[in-house]
Amino acid sequence: MRARNLAVVLATIHRSGPHTRAALAERTGLTKTTVSSLVSDLLEAGVVTESGAVRGGERGRPGVAVSLSGHRVAALGLEINIDYLAACVVDLTRAVRLRRTRPADNRNSDPARILSGVRNLVKEITAEAEADGLRVIGAALAVPGTVEGGVVRSAPHLGWRDVRVADLVDLPFTIDNEANLAALGELWFGSRETDFLYVSGEIGIGAGVVVEGTVFRGTFGLAGELGHVVVVPDGPTCRCGGRGCLEVYAGQDALLGELASVGELVGRLESGDPRALEACERAGHALGVALTSAVHLLDPGRIVLGGIFAPLYRWLEGPVSEGLGARLGQMRGTPPALVVSATGADAAVLGAAGSIIQQIIAEPAQLLGL
Amino acid sequence: MRARNLAVVLATIHRSGPHTRAALAERTGLTKTTVSSLVSDLLEAGVVTESGAVRGGERGRPGVAVSLSGHRVAALGLEINIDYLAACVVDLTRAVRLRRTRPADNRNSDPARILSGVRNLVKEITAEAEADGLRVIGAALAVPGTVEGGVVRSAPHLGWRDVRVADLVDLPFTIDNEANLAALGELWFGSRETDFLYVSGEIGIGAGVVVEGTVFRGTFGLAGELGHVVVVPDGPTCRCGGRGCLEVYAGQDALLGELASVGELVGRLESGDPRALEACERAGHALGVALTSAVHLLDPGRIVLGGIFAPLYRWLEGPVSEGLGARLGQMRGTPPALVVSATGADAAVLGAAGSIIQQIIAEPAQLLGL
Repeated sequence: MRARNLAVVLATIHRSGPHTRAALAERTGLTKTTVSSLVSDLLEAGVVTESGAVRGGERGRPGVAVSLSGHRVAALGLEINIDYLAACVVDLTRAVRLRRTRPADNRNSDPARILSGVRNLVKEITAEAEADGLRVIGAALAVPGTVEGGVVRSAPHLGWRDVRVADLVDLPFTIDNEANLAALGELWFGSRETDFLYVSGEIGIGAGVVVEGTVFRGTFGLAGELGHVVVVPDGPTCRCGGRGCLEVYAGQDALLGELASVGELVGRLESGDPRALEACERAGHALGVALTSAVHLLDPGRIVLGGIFAPLYRWLEGPVSEGLGARLGQMRGTPPALVVSATGADAAVLGAAGSIIQQIIAEPAQLLGL
Repeated sequence: MRARNLAVVLATIHRSGPHTRAALAERTGLTKTTVSSLVSDLLEAGVVTESGAVRGGERGRPGVAVSLSGHRVAALGLEINIDYLAACVVDLTRAVRLRRTRPADNRNSDPARILSGVRNLVKEITAEAEADGLRVIGAALAVPGTVEGGVVRSAPHLGWRDVRVADLVDLPFTIDNEANLAALGELWFGSRETDFLYVSGEIGIGAGVVVEGTVFRGTFGLAGELGHVVVVPDGPTCRCGGRGCLEVYAGQDALLGELASVGELVGRLESGDPRALEACERAGHALGVALTSAVHLLDPGRIVLGGIFAPLYRWLEGPVSEGLGARLGQMRGTPPALVVSATGADAAVLGAAGSIIQQIIAEPAQLLGL
């Protein structure tokens, strides 16, 4: 009961901003004595802070306002991607306090070697966070693959199958799919729209569909595998065993060809290189087909292009919009708006940290040991 | 508060079967006096009934058990489809009490004429239900199109656009998409599995994805439009304005060709007619492609083929399973099981009635005027 009341008080402050104790009591239906006792626990844990006198909403009397504190409690976001490792620390107000990215070649890699790299990154960033007075109380890891409990079931580009990720941090810890966490990153740190399909362009292509602020995960947590939606049923063989999947036409490898990086591709596109323009055109057409199927099945509020599709948005927007307009027009009047991600390459690692903040707000007693 | 307590008591009986009043008090945390008073209201409304003495679970004392009553309260399911109208009456225990189907030619039809046909069917079946002592207290209508509030936004095969359905019944009334209600029909009256993608083969092809017993509807309630998933991007033009949609290859018109009915097609298939076999083969391949995309995006527990795909299952199963196996194998180990619907052609109209029963159980005070 006390745990539930702590959660109710914290959720009220989180949702509706600073409150006096009296206003909290009025809003939550708890007694003032109970609220005072809960608030002092939250103060002591560094979860909330007292700020200057505000006018209490309820009866116009001024009082000391209690608000979320960004000074103490923090969460760690981690990401293993094909060509980099990333980490970030986010405080309880969802302010991003630290970010670190390390280029790496993780393709078909030894899990032990990569995990040791992550461990080093964790040590470094946690020490920095502590130096800033932050207490990191949970961590989440984004991986480009399917996840079940603490096990990465299949991350084909990493070459991982059934890899258990243990002893990475000495903290409450979760793992999730990169695209799901990137969608949550967009929700919490990007546009803050609550209904959209986030398309994560990486070496693989994933997606996370968010409806009313919640990711739809399907039955086994495997929903949103946009990269393997069939674009051309008898197209080229895909790494997944299928044929003509979206990834074959619009994955990073298809887009880059011989080029070394997305930056180089953008340079070529800016200088009007016909091969680069053609690769983007082809990718955009394939995305238009796959997103048509996705819109019919998932009915998203809008479509957000993220990951490497963000820097390529200028060149993708035309063919993608055209495809959606031509195919969806009569069924839906206007197709969902197509926009570029507001979070860029950090979406997944931010979403990872944000997912821990959300857990703390939802169950403060458990994660803070109150 | 009383309304909430009525719902708690009714949900307990609905979920866990007959209970003594004492057992209900123990289970719900309400006082025995409160439970007795709620139960007498429910008895009077005909929602529950008293049956013989049972051993009360809590202390071994025998008592009178209170269980859901199938004798009084009932719901009306209605369906407008392209070539028939249907109605059914389902009692509170979800026993199907009456079913009526009227063949009709509703293609590109006048809404007023069809709705008048539905009104006649309602009068007839309601009178029969009353003669059986049933009190119909709500109705739901399934339509083959998209629905928003009380308006059928677009039902392309009916030729309807923005048709407001009013004055159909003098009862609390909802409208929903045929495939969503058919999925719920399968959930409540069919296999009772809680996780599946129900594929509704009709003149159009819809789908309803059920995860943990709930239909996923997307942002605007338009999710599950499987019929317009792209199978061949430059394939034949579809009625929706797109090209190469599933419906072009596997909708009823594509399957039947010159034949008059699904029964006739089944006859031809049984006698080994090569054109009929080829049509099924082609539809099965297209379904395999579209369902591959659907599995990647929606991650269903299993796939249930319903509507006209149920009588054709023998001929579709091979090509569909083959397609799913070849395309999904490496990503998922085994693809979701493919099964035939347990509810047949009645799925949508049963789901419609069932949705009202679910509302009564969830909010008895409101729908019963308690």
